[in-house]
Amino acid sequence: MKLATLPGAGREGRLVLVSRDLTRAVSAGTIASTLQAALDDWARVEPQLLALSQSLEARTAGDVFPFDQAHALAPLPRAFQWLDASAFLSHGRLMAKAMRLSSNPQTSDAPLMYQGGSDDFLGPCTDAPFPSEADGIDFEGEFAVIVDETPMGASTERARQAVRLVVQLNDWSLRVVAPREMQSGFGFIHAKPATAFAPVAVTPDELGSSWTDGRVGLDLHIAWNDKPFGRPNGGVMSYSFFELIAHAARTRRLRAGTIIGSGTVSNDNPQDVGSACIAEKRGLEIIAAGEPTTPFMTFGDRVRMEALDERGDAPFGAIDQRVVKG
Amino acid sequence: MKLATLPGAGREGRLVLVSRDLTRAVSAGTIASTLQAALDDWARVEPQLLALSQSLEARTAGDVFPFDQAHALAPLPRAFQWLDASAFLSHGRLMAKAMRLSSNPQTSDAPLMYQGGSDDFLGPCTDAPFPSEADGIDFEGEFAVIVDETPMGASTERARQAVRLVVQLNDWSLRVVAPREMQSGFGFIHAKPATAFAPVAVTPDELGSSWTDGRVGLDLHIAWNDKPFGRPNGGVMSYSFFELIAHAARTRRLRAGTIIGSGTVSNDNPQDVGSACIAEKRGLEIIAAGEPTTPFMTFGDRVRMEALDERGDAPFGAIDQRVVKG
Repeated sequence: MKLATLPGAGREGRLVLVSRDLTRAVSAGTIASTLQAALDDWARVEPQLLALSQSLEARTAGDVFPFDQAHALAPLPRAFQWLDASAFLSHGRLMAKAMRLSSNPQTSDAPLMYQGGSDDFLGPCTDAPFPSEADGIDFEGEFAVIVDETPMGASTERARQAVRLVVQLNDWSLRVVAPREMQSGFGFIHAKPATAFAPVAVTPDELGSSWTDGRVGLDLHIAWNDKPFGRPNGGVMSYSFFELIAHAARTRRLRAGTIIGSGTVSNDNPQDVGSACIAEKRGLEIIAAGEPTTPFMTFGDRVRMEALDERGDAPFGAIDQRVVKG
Repeated sequence: MKLATLPGAGREGRLVLVSRDLTRAVSAGTIASTLQAALDDWARVEPQLLALSQSLEARTAGDVFPFDQAHALAPLPRAFQWLDASAFLSHGRLMAKAMRLSSNPQTSDAPLMYQGGSDDFLGPCTDAPFPSEADGIDFEGEFAVIVDETPMGASTERARQAVRLVVQLNDWSLRVVAPREMQSGFGFIHAKPATAFAPVAVTPDELGSSWTDGRVGLDLHIAWNDKPFGRPNGGVMSYSFFELIAHAARTRRLRAGTIIGSGTVSNDNPQDVGSACIAEKRGLEIIAAGEPTTPFMTFGDRVRMEALDERGDAPFGAIDQRVVKG
């Protein structure tokens, strides 16, 4: 099933179910008023949501209305936890080489993961405001899962049962600011402003065979100012989402609605498929010619991100944002 | 006014107003069902909460019941953002000296701040579960503020207007895990399990002259297994909470309900007043004798934390937790 959040009375918006082709929606308000409310009570509400979703698909549901992706909020307009990993090791290897780091912080021992801000997620077509172009404004195309209650010390196998929804996101990053924050050891605050989400959260079954072994095997198509920038595939993620969940839960339980991200989708042939962030393209340029030639974004720039399946459909809908002066 | 959260129907519990002496409470449910709901709509609900609080103090309110600190949840049982600083520079200087760090990551240029997990806050008397004693279980006594909407780029002066509530907390830390996570540059995930909060959140005016220049000038009394461990004063915080809020908002707005913490309360005479965390005591021992003699906590240990005013009253109530095997 596919879920989205439309503007509603409160900051959490109101939960709707969306048809498989993303053209129609129906309110889920009688079952759960918001997506967080549904996640807090998933075992009880899931069968009801599923029944309504099936009647929407069968065109027997009442009060169906056209679904407009551009007006959706993030599926969770704010969340209680947002943990983002760096789970494509090809990205880390490339960046460490480009930056001539003596050691690559991204190793195969354990995933890198940071705690992101989750009080203010942007909708798919909301302008992204930043204070200064000098901060090195960059997009990062990613996938993530939204999980149910997960006990402390959960195994990878236990973590598998915790995945409720899959989402697609743009982890906005300020590259000039990031190294200073990494050096402090305390992680990112200024370097990671509000994250944006594609309009539709899907249950893993909606992805069919593209959901394999805890990975999203779809090409993530990125266009920067309408020019294709990359289409790396999410299926080669070095750690599965199950492993990322288990990693996150090592010393504490995770509560329902926790979002766990993949980090920039990256393949080991970016010269062929492009990248999901500008930093990686600049890294390639540094390795090839000693210095980067692609600038970061400027105010007015747009980025579009959509994961496409083999039929050319976008199961999550599209992110299409403009960068503006905050 | 003083607010607390008692167990209720949902994960957010139910909001109550508490009498100044912490003995009595009255439901605030007709005004705002939860503390987050109140914070989302503060301008509208504040006068109503204030009127009810005054009638509670004047003993004219109906349906008043005894308030039992030990049964309270954290004022926000889960929050959308938890940013914790390290705003007592004496702590950083001591730790850098003890660890013989070539450079102290905590400088006076800008506050150190990390994004903490906020999906699962512990109540004041809830057992604190950890997977292993070998991880170096430590407490950290802190103060924090809960803020209202704060625009990106807010000045310190603008940030002053954003403070809604002051709270007291125990930022549980796993010291053996922390250095590895700091080295990664991505900040703390495993090293910072669920944080616990004292039962009562107070408006700054409740602190009287102890709230000065965005600092909590109270002694934070810490007892480990009933033995006094420290009583550092929060008034010497090197950055005010206003500065911390402005720092957090440099590249993004902060939404209502964001919690911003002080970091371990620390004074520059810990040999006299003790410390608010074991790591600092061990740091002193390393400086004095080359190695630490105080161990970290073991399962079954207790820690009690309460900030006391000059009359010996505890405006936030007390944290009193036991460490258990998770």
